[in-house]
Amino acid sequence: MNKTNSVFIATSIDGYISDKNDELDWLHYIPNPDSIDMGYGKFTNRIDAIVMGRTTFETVCGFDIAWPYKKPLFVLSNTLLELPESYKTKAELVKGSLTEILEQIHKKGYHRLYIDGGTTIQSFLNEDLIDELVITTIPILLGGGSRLFAELTHELKFEHVESKEFLNDIVQSHYKRIR
Amino acid sequence: MNKTNSVFIATSIDGYISDKNDELDWLHYIPNPDSIDMGYGKFTNRIDAIVMGRTTFETVCGFDIAWPYKKPLFVLSNTLLELPESYKTKAELVKGSLTEILEQIHKKGYHRLYIDGGTTIQSFLNEDLIDELVITTIPILLGGGSRLFAELTHELKFEHVESKEFLNDIVQSHYKRIR
Repeated sequence: MNKTNSVFIATSIDGYISDKNDELDWLHYIPNPDSIDMGYGKFTNRIDAIVMGRTTFETVCGFDIAWPYKKPLFVLSNTLLELPESYKTKAELVKGSLTEILEQIHKKGYHRLYIDGGTTIQSFLNEDLIDELVITTIPILLGGGSRLFAELTHELKFEHVESKEFLNDIVQSHYKRIR
Repeated sequence: MNKTNSVFIATSIDGYISDKNDELDWLHYIPNPDSIDMGYGKFTNRIDAIVMGRTTFETVCGFDIAWPYKKPLFVLSNTLLELPESYKTKAELVKGSLTEILEQIHKKGYHRLYIDGGTTIQSFLNEDLIDELVITTIPILLGGGSRLFAELTHELKFEHVESKEFLNDIVQSHYKRIR
């Protein structure tokens, strides 16, 4: 089966995924009265599992909402010894190099992975392990915060699959890695 | 007359405008056999003059091409004493704060300005002096180089005017500042 690592994430025009105060409110500043999901449902339907870093995991745990994931979730951390008791049925801790982690997850039968969280995405990109980027751009310059992209040892070329507009104001571009 | 400051620039997916070696070759990695200009001609038709920083000016002077500008060019520098002799008919040096510089240029009858060069764009954005952004995204992650955007003291909201695709692979998004 084809193994793919995909990113589906929203950024500001200037490439931040959270603002200077670690807040995410700006993600919703364009009114979305019908709560359209901008392709998120379709995207998650075609993935087998989610891989995220500890920071993103802890952020999600801190949201005052029902558990948002319907797919198995792997939390990547080389420092955490175990997940909090209440999350043990929802997520699994994975350790090791990215290649080792991917091997563990693939062995469990999950091949199409949703890679989430800034640091995790950056690590995967730096080892050229991302096959697909779906980037949703919110029309704001945040001027600071956490960046989606960091320095890479090598340039990575992509092809543009398609771009879509949502709510007149949001552009979503889909790119595939050229190998 | 309406005064507008516009940016028309190409970046990598990760927001760089030149690569780690200060090179621009990647701008042309998508084949463009008919040399389509991706709206650059239409854009320059609706501006009165160009404002760029010293670094960008010197980069352009270093290109082995005919002088590329048909509109008056203002070079912003508080350190240069004068422009090289051979450029004195092509460009004019301007000094002072951005507000002072804009005042000088407006007095000469140029109101719709094309603001170019990373540092200059960043300075204009930081004083909320940019009205329009036209960003052309080349499908590559450069992983380093000069960034289009820098830190800002304030968030700036934009509205999305339109996005266009060129050569199947290049997405150009047009944003206007909401004031």
